[in-house]
Amino acid sequence: MTLRSDESFWSPQVRQLVPYVPGEQPKIPHLVKLNTNENPYPPSPRVVQAIAAAAQQGLQLYPDPESTALREAVAAHHGLDAAQVFVGNGSDEVLAHAFFAFFRQDRPLLMPDISYSFYQVYCALYEIRCEPVPLDAALRIDVAAYARPAGGVVVANPNAPTGVGLPLAAIEQLLRLHPRQVVLVDEAYVDFGGDSAIGLIGRHPNLLVVHTLSKSRSLAGLRVGVACGQPHLIEALARVKNSFNSYPLDRLAQAGAVAAYEDRAYFDETRRAVMHSREGLALALEDLGFEVLPSQANFVFARHPRHDAAALAAALRERGVLVRHFRQPARIAQFLRISVGTPAQCEALVQALGPLVAQAGAGPA
Amino acid sequence: MTLRSDESFWSPQVRQLVPYVPGEQPKIPHLVKLNTNENPYPPSPRVVQAIAAAAQQGLQLYPDPESTALREAVAAHHGLDAAQVFVGNGSDEVLAHAFFAFFRQDRPLLMPDISYSFYQVYCALYEIRCEPVPLDAALRIDVAAYARPAGGVVVANPNAPTGVGLPLAAIEQLLRLHPRQVVLVDEAYVDFGGDSAIGLIGRHPNLLVVHTLSKSRSLAGLRVGVACGQPHLIEALARVKNSFNSYPLDRLAQAGAVAAYEDRAYFDETRRAVMHSREGLALALEDLGFEVLPSQANFVFARHPRHDAAALAAALRERGVLVRHFRQPARIAQFLRISVGTPAQCEALVQALGPLVAQAGAGPA
Repeated sequence: MTLRSDESFWSPQVRQLVPYVPGEQPKIPHLVKLNTNENPYPPSPRVVQAIAAAAQQGLQLYPDPESTALREAVAAHHGLDAAQVFVGNGSDEVLAHAFFAFFRQDRPLLMPDISYSFYQVYCALYEIRCEPVPLDAALRIDVAAYARPAGGVVVANPNAPTGVGLPLAAIEQLLRLHPRQVVLVDEAYVDFGGDSAIGLIGRHPNLLVVHTLSKSRSLAGLRVGVACGQPHLIEALARVKNSFNSYPLDRLAQAGAVAAYEDRAYFDETRRAVMHSREGLALALEDLGFEVLPSQANFVFARHPRHDAAALAAALRERGVLVRHFRQPARIAQFLRISVGTPAQCEALVQALGPLVAQAGAGPA
Repeated sequence: MTLRSDESFWSPQVRQLVPYVPGEQPKIPHLVKLNTNENPYPPSPRVVQAIAAAAQQGLQLYPDPESTALREAVAAHHGLDAAQVFVGNGSDEVLAHAFFAFFRQDRPLLMPDISYSFYQVYCALYEIRCEPVPLDAALRIDVAAYARPAGGVVVANPNAPTGVGLPLAAIEQLLRLHPRQVVLVDEAYVDFGGDSAIGLIGRHPNLLVVHTLSKSRSLAGLRVGVACGQPHLIEALARVKNSFNSYPLDRLAQAGAVAAYEDRAYFDETRRAVMHSREGLALALEDLGFEVLPSQANFVFARHPRHDAAALAAALRERGVLVRHFRQPARIAQFLRISVGTPAQCEALVQALGPLVAQAGAGPA
């Protein structure tokens, strides 16, 4: 193999990595930013107060390596014990540790062929063989298709980028299909109308549920993720974490995240506002001729029968509105993933789209 | 192999991991805490202001995944280009990514047999064969002993837990011994009197220098670490990072860390105060009969000829003073590692130690 000279110092595997590409974070003012599924509302004022207080003293001291107060707050919220809770530096880190802790097995990891694309990146990083299972014709997870040998299962529920949710009965079916393997349910978006599997943890020793504070708790900027499961799963995550970084959550993140869990009223108010806006946005898009998948998330996934999705995304960007378009896989290349913004942001999107779709479209490319 | 039933879901390798154990972070008030090498001074007031400002807006939005402003501030501080700078969630994360990016090679990684014990934990995590190279009789790194086949080299300079530094000529010797392998110099403590290798980066494509904001910048509670090297090394770190977690540094950590680099006067003032206290502490310990290794760090490593180190550490703890004692390896089991505190904390330590060492010691165990 001929190496680029500048790769000669790298571990051989690193030359093969194809990193995840997050949605762009442009520094353009006054952009209507509906491309990375952030919450349009700021976090609870109590979060900001807790951070300001934590910054006033003790920053020269290491944080609690076990994030005990935060794990207790998460446990209290969900009716769990702190020994059933793991926390990390965003759910991406939590997912990475879970892939390492559970899915480096002889048999392949099953996952939907269309889902959060970071899953396949973790597999490449940790040399995990993965077997994508196709979504059905309606872009739903087809649980029956998971009845095949596996070293583990990961699904997002609601799924991304489709926003389509699975009922808990389907999750239980997955858990029963693979009772000796970990079934990881990534519930990043569950608080916007999905059914959480956290209530199943007591009955299923193979269930790991991952949450994030980046979406329903308006804290994408703070980087906090959570995993819930029986203690034997949490112990494996802690072993990996303690072999990687003793202190993944800084003092401010721990303090802010505790406050976010404690302000349940704000959490409920803002997630309900997002769900309400989502329903209005879906209707407005349908009025413009879009087909909109049923969403349980803080985004909608929509395609227009007469307009190419990449062209629409580019035209919207010229008008100061950012949405996400995925060129791959081919089955979703004509969809746009649009985060639910404030009512004003949703209105700006619809106003920008109206003239674009009113034109005679060139049709999907 | 018989498994504990609760390990049956784990990836096989996870059963073998022996995680790093950080120094304890007890929640006892009024403790004189000299066990984890934190800075006794708070961070610059500008850091606290920057964090408070960053908390006021935008926490619902993802942070800059590239930490551009911070990488520029680090580069400006060291006279580098931002393309020569990588940042992560504490230097432990930076080290972990570096081990993955560079040291997964056929040949073994060389490191001092007595050094930061996390290095061996990373090797177990990433299945890197490591070959410990003994310190010499004075507990110094013996550079000549590194002239052997290697997939890479990692040294701490100054070394931990000894505090003993290497001159730059010795670092250059390591770089020339292994021109085709990465030589990682972990300079966590360099700002307290060591010689930084950052000035050698332009001449040595195999040099990676790792810094932390936890020590000389009083930000152990914020979790920020840095790696500096030529862009082809930084690119490898970025590939690993972007296959693991796109956003390792939250908005508050990025803002606070920029402010820490910008307040050079505060940085110089506080690190000089620590170095001044260290010299006084070393003299006081010698007056009590201790042998104290020459330290370029914010801690001293000392042993008493007539008193067992574990017994002294336990007796100090009873008196509300925490220092660090390592039972392993045997060569350092009679040493105490004592962080340099404020003048008052150093005085409290000496006052507590005085009566203990005045007693007829049982002698080292």
